[in-house]
Amino acid sequence: MSKTSFVAEPGRQEIVMERRFAAPRARVFAAYTDPVAIPRWWGPRFLTTIVDRLEPRQGGIWRFVQRDRSGNEYAFRGVFHESLAPQRIVRTFEFEGMPGHVLLETVLFEEEDGQTKVTARSVFQTQEARDGMLQTGAEHGAAETWDRLDELLAE
Amino acid sequence: MSKTSFVAEPGRQEIVMERRFAAPRARVFAAYTDPVAIPRWWGPRFLTTIVDRLEPRQGGIWRFVQRDRSGNEYAFRGVFHESLAPQRIVRTFEFEGMPGHVLLETVLFEEEDGQTKVTARSVFQTQEARDGMLQTGAEHGAAETWDRLDELLAE
Repeated sequence: MSKTSFVAEPGRQEIVMERRFAAPRARVFAAYTDPVAIPRWWGPRFLTTIVDRLEPRQGGIWRFVQRDRSGNEYAFRGVFHESLAPQRIVRTFEFEGMPGHVLLETVLFEEEDGQTKVTARSVFQTQEARDGMLQTGAEHGAAETWDRLDELLAE
Repeated sequence: MSKTSFVAEPGRQEIVMERRFAAPRARVFAAYTDPVAIPRWWGPRFLTTIVDRLEPRQGGIWRFVQRDRSGNEYAFRGVFHESLAPQRIVRTFEFEGMPGHVLLETVLFEEEDGQTKVTARSVFQTQEARDGMLQTGAEHGAAETWDRLDELLAE
């Protein structure tokens, strides 16, 4: 059972995800900005993730490449608009296969009783773009990636 | 009377503006990406706009500084995520006085009978952020800046 709350209200153009992780927020924040940690949790388990760039500062680029077992590669990238440790990341997200399609993600890290509540709010250019993302199985993928993060933090 | 359509539907987190300009779209697009043209139309008339950076390519930075008569400066910046002449610009927009507050703007340029329809869609991190922008007089400011662009294109 997923512990990830995933909300995509009808008629809106955002997805809001929330989850509590049993770790201090400095550790959770670090997992988002550490090139060694990213391949261990970002994305689905059946793909290998390679960190090409990860520059968590205003104007910095991130670019991750996912590779499947046949060697096909899928690249994602974006720009950090803010990386304010340990509380907030604002960045864009693009799949390189769909240029011009961009989403804006705001990730908040809040500490509550030694645990960390992470809220990730993704806004899309249009409602249609958001609905298209939902049809690709975004909810399942998001839950899996946060399950992986939870496992990493439990080590 | 403004010829700018400005739509901010209740309960949503976007502003959609639209206007027809009496010029071919290559000229309208160029006005958006030309550092000489920008100070002549971008922003309200009572401020002086200085182009600090304008790099219309994926990952390129833009930064404009507005100066009032007392010498106070207000800086705006963002990142180009796409600049596909003459049809589409995707970029972010930030006021440097409010770090972490970012909007994502998609500008479409469509030619119709020798005129150009420009559609600018700005999406905000939250509905509250959009509503806050509306309260600053965004509609008046946007109409004025497009009036100025219209005048420039008519020269």
